[in-house]
Amino acid sequence: MTVQTVHFSRGIPPLEAIPSTAIAEHTSAVLAAEPDRVFQYAPIGRHTGDQELREQLGKFHSVDPDRVFVTNGSLQALDLLAAHLLRDAVEPQVLVEAPTYDRAVQIFERHGAQVSGVPLRHDGVDLNVLRERLRTKVPAFVYVIPDFQNPSGVTTSEDKRRELVRLSAEYGFTILEDIPYRELRFSGTAPTRLGELAESTDGAHVLTIGSLSKVLSPGLRVGYVIGPPGTPHALAALAESTYLSPAPLLQVVAARALANGLIRENTEHVRRLLRPRHDAAVEAVRQTLGDVHLCVPEGGYYISVHLPIRTDEESFLAAARKDGLALTRGSAFYPADSAPPSGTVFLRLPFQALDGEEFAEGVRRLAAAAERAA
Amino acid sequence: MTVQTVHFSRGIPPLEAIPSTAIAEHTSAVLAAEPDRVFQYAPIGRHTGDQELREQLGKFHSVDPDRVFVTNGSLQALDLLAAHLLRDAVEPQVLVEAPTYDRAVQIFERHGAQVSGVPLRHDGVDLNVLRERLRTKVPAFVYVIPDFQNPSGVTTSEDKRRELVRLSAEYGFTILEDIPYRELRFSGTAPTRLGELAESTDGAHVLTIGSLSKVLSPGLRVGYVIGPPGTPHALAALAESTYLSPAPLLQVVAARALANGLIRENTEHVRRLLRPRHDAAVEAVRQTLGDVHLCVPEGGYYISVHLPIRTDEESFLAAARKDGLALTRGSAFYPADSAPPSGTVFLRLPFQALDGEEFAEGVRRLAAAAERAA
Repeated sequence: MTVQTVHFSRGIPPLEAIPSTAIAEHTSAVLAAEPDRVFQYAPIGRHTGDQELREQLGKFHSVDPDRVFVTNGSLQALDLLAAHLLRDAVEPQVLVEAPTYDRAVQIFERHGAQVSGVPLRHDGVDLNVLRERLRTKVPAFVYVIPDFQNPSGVTTSEDKRRELVRLSAEYGFTILEDIPYRELRFSGTAPTRLGELAESTDGAHVLTIGSLSKVLSPGLRVGYVIGPPGTPHALAALAESTYLSPAPLLQVVAARALANGLIRENTEHVRRLLRPRHDAAVEAVRQTLGDVHLCVPEGGYYISVHLPIRTDEESFLAAARKDGLALTRGSAFYPADSAPPSGTVFLRLPFQALDGEEFAEGVRRLAAAAERAA
Repeated sequence: MTVQTVHFSRGIPPLEAIPSTAIAEHTSAVLAAEPDRVFQYAPIGRHTGDQELREQLGKFHSVDPDRVFVTNGSLQALDLLAAHLLRDAVEPQVLVEAPTYDRAVQIFERHGAQVSGVPLRHDGVDLNVLRERLRTKVPAFVYVIPDFQNPSGVTTSEDKRRELVRLSAEYGFTILEDIPYRELRFSGTAPTRLGELAESTDGAHVLTIGSLSKVLSPGLRVGYVIGPPGTPHALAALAESTYLSPAPLLQVVAARALANGLIRENTEHVRRLLRPRHDAAVEAVRQTLGDVHLCVPEGGYYISVHLPIRTDEESFLAAARKDGLALTRGSAFYPADSAPPSGTVFLRLPFQALDGEEFAEGVRRLAAAAERAA
């Protein structure tokens, strides 16, 4: 008998979280109404994105549409922002949460930054460590994923958010907040968006990166940046000599999906779909592994653990693979100068695509593998 | 009476060159057949593009699909290739035609290259100058637009192509050939694609950048690279940490448009549409301005001139603007170390969106402005 592998690997939405038929209908409606516009080039000359989409995103986040810039997915936003913020910096440093999103670190390094990790606690980065680091060197920017972080599931507390924004003003660095999972809260209350806090803090500088991948569709590749007036124009100039513009059709479809409530409805649907998966995952980890999780996420896709082992990560992952467990290498989520606590592996356990029983089976295999490796 | 401005400015397809209704029908068919796949993330792990699209592009160019990499438009291909080719180069130099496509120069410079121009003649770059330059320093790559070049309209002759490819092998540099206009030939015979010549030349290294913007639709943002085996995978790794992937939907639509002949038919249609515009433009320039054009294009969107003036470019463009002529600043098409012949301005005159009478009127105004500035 072959054992079905349990996939604790990639964080992509389950198909049932993507309203494909409704998006297809929207697309056909747009095609019928304005085929000419969507197959031509977008306007050039500091073009910051489809006007209707920027208005809808502005309304969604209660900001002026002139502060919104649309990108080919949120990773492209990170790439443009890194190019923009690191352009004239000499030996720039970027601080990130440790662990953090691995592709972000790759992007910052490619743009010449020395990336350094600040340990992440259950409620956000360790502020004592951060303050210490700021006294030594002020970074070009600090990158945080404050809501249901990928890979850890951690949400930065309201208090820590206020202090981060205050430090941004005190030391004069930019904060990049990346919020792809923010709308997927299953319980509790959302803390304030950092960009919103910055508006009432003199001298603070926050840029927000958003995405429709987790509330509508990843295939549409719609991401965006919210920044102070001026930032969208600067990014537009850079984008125009990188990829010109995102595809007009996909932007118009996204705008309609925001305007007529499809995104709101689908977000509700995804919350209902994922909440029991989240609850089952938290329960399974607690019951089977004990108190090794970094936090109880209350939203998003991920729960994560620091699991005590005695072998090295490589051997552990290989052994787990044989036991029918596909895991992502947790050390990849740490920048080069950081690591999980000694004697542990870091494991990201995505629950969004697994039902409670599958997740529990995965965790049992994990416990068995850890026991053999202890 | 207000004078209608004649726009000798941006090189975008006229709306009647984009088969919007047919593309819309293809899109609806794709949406009906496979809505789930096109709204999800594309696969990751060295994903080089939609399989069907790569097969169709491979067939179109008579190359193995494994040599094709799909991008978000061809500008993004240039950006990725620049990052790829310049990554480990120390004080890299890039040689370009002078004049050349301005955005390409911006991209190469952003990736750290020192960009230098080789004068462009009516049949391609000046090979004597190029050989001289190669003896001094071997560039990271040479960038050429060999068919109906933007901005000049020049096509590189078969002989010069063979010599370029031979030099690539002799000196060990890469050639980037950018061929967005190649299919839009109105008369004469197409010389061989550089990438094809490289296949029978030991040691030559050519990467081809293609686009569907001029034969199908710019709004689909489908570009691609054809390279030796290995290049697509290297580019895929880079793309995955830049923007993940192009939108699946647009790739599938493009694949269908290639598979069922829409692109072939539309290319024929565009040739029929633009040929009389080309002929009228060539005639108008000859009749009104005399022998100042760089070449008779035989295809593409552009004819260009070196027009003798006595004032400076800035004043000339401002005066022309007042006379109802919108022109692109020609010096922008020259890299920093190059310039049009002394005593002339370089002017790109796009004919693809103007009927013969409009173009002739524009050229008459140009002649009048030049007379006043002479």
